[in-house]
Amino acid sequence: MQSIGIIRSPFTELANMPIQPKGAAGAEGTIIVDPQFERGLDDLDGFSHIYLLYLFHKADRTELTVVPFMDDSPRGVFSTRSPLRPGHIGLSIVELLGRQGNELKVRGIDILDQTPLLDIKPYIAEFDEVKESRSGWLCASEEEVRKKRSDRRFT
Amino acid sequence: MQSIGIIRSPFTELANMPIQPKGAAGAEGTIIVDPQFERGLDDLDGFSHIYLLYLFHKADRTELTVVPFMDDSPRGVFSTRSPLRPGHIGLSIVELLGRQGNELKVRGIDILDQTPLLDIKPYIAEFDEVKESRSGWLCASEEEVRKKRSDRRFT
Repeated sequence: MQSIGIIRSPFTELANMPIQPKGAAGAEGTIIVDPQFERGLDDLDGFSHIYLLYLFHKADRTELTVVPFMDDSPRGVFSTRSPLRPGHIGLSIVELLGRQGNELKVRGIDILDQTPLLDIKPYIAEFDEVKESRSGWLCASEEEVRKKRSDRRFT
Repeated sequence: MQSIGIIRSPFTELANMPIQPKGAAGAEGTIIVDPQFERGLDDLDGFSHIYLLYLFHKADRTELTVVPFMDDSPRGVFSTRSPLRPGHIGLSIVELLGRQGNELKVRGIDILDQTPLLDIKPYIAEFDEVKESRSGWLCASEEEVRKKRSDRRFT
């Protein structure tokens, strides 16, 4: 798994973090892409939102059943966004504020400081918008998602 | 990069494929997860849509500037969904039709047959919905995205 850069954020420990970008609306961070890949960032600043793919580098084990932050019941790990998944790949959609050289400023970051970056993709509504969806076990309101913070269960 | 299974689809060659799930609305496929991870699929069938993360295993090189299928101009690869990106990780949102044991039936698949699967995540509107977004260079309509097919430029 090739890291292409590093993610800087205000969150230096796993506890008390926002559990999703929507819980981190005000949190700003910096994506530092390795200079060898800088040219690949051209044209990205025309997009308002980007996907970040990254490695949950503090996840030191895999569990197939987890109790997610937004639930009290054990769930199959692939039906959650838990870091303890096989492969330990994380996905967040953040707002892109701007680019300078090999650095991107983003808002709404729910990612631990110093997280290895795996990929950046543009969010493209024509491709990615899901008009009607159904969310299995998760019955939380957006308000609850915004308020919820992590604890130590995945550390 | 650990593969956790394999993606089966009707698309056995890279040319003439849908370029995004929205262009593959009718195409059905099967996600076969390694039996050792089967239990991790529990509770997933309550979700209508899932993210598939996978390896563009036919991408044998990296290019920092590409001409995307929906454009005529060279663009930084991270502002596109091209397979030639560093790391070669692909992302698609597909509709989940059902699960049987270690297999998932999905619809709207734009992925090459025999593609190695890296991760499955539930699409959760409370986390993932982007209400207003702006898409840089891409000015295509949804109609154009639906009609467009791949050619040999990334092979």
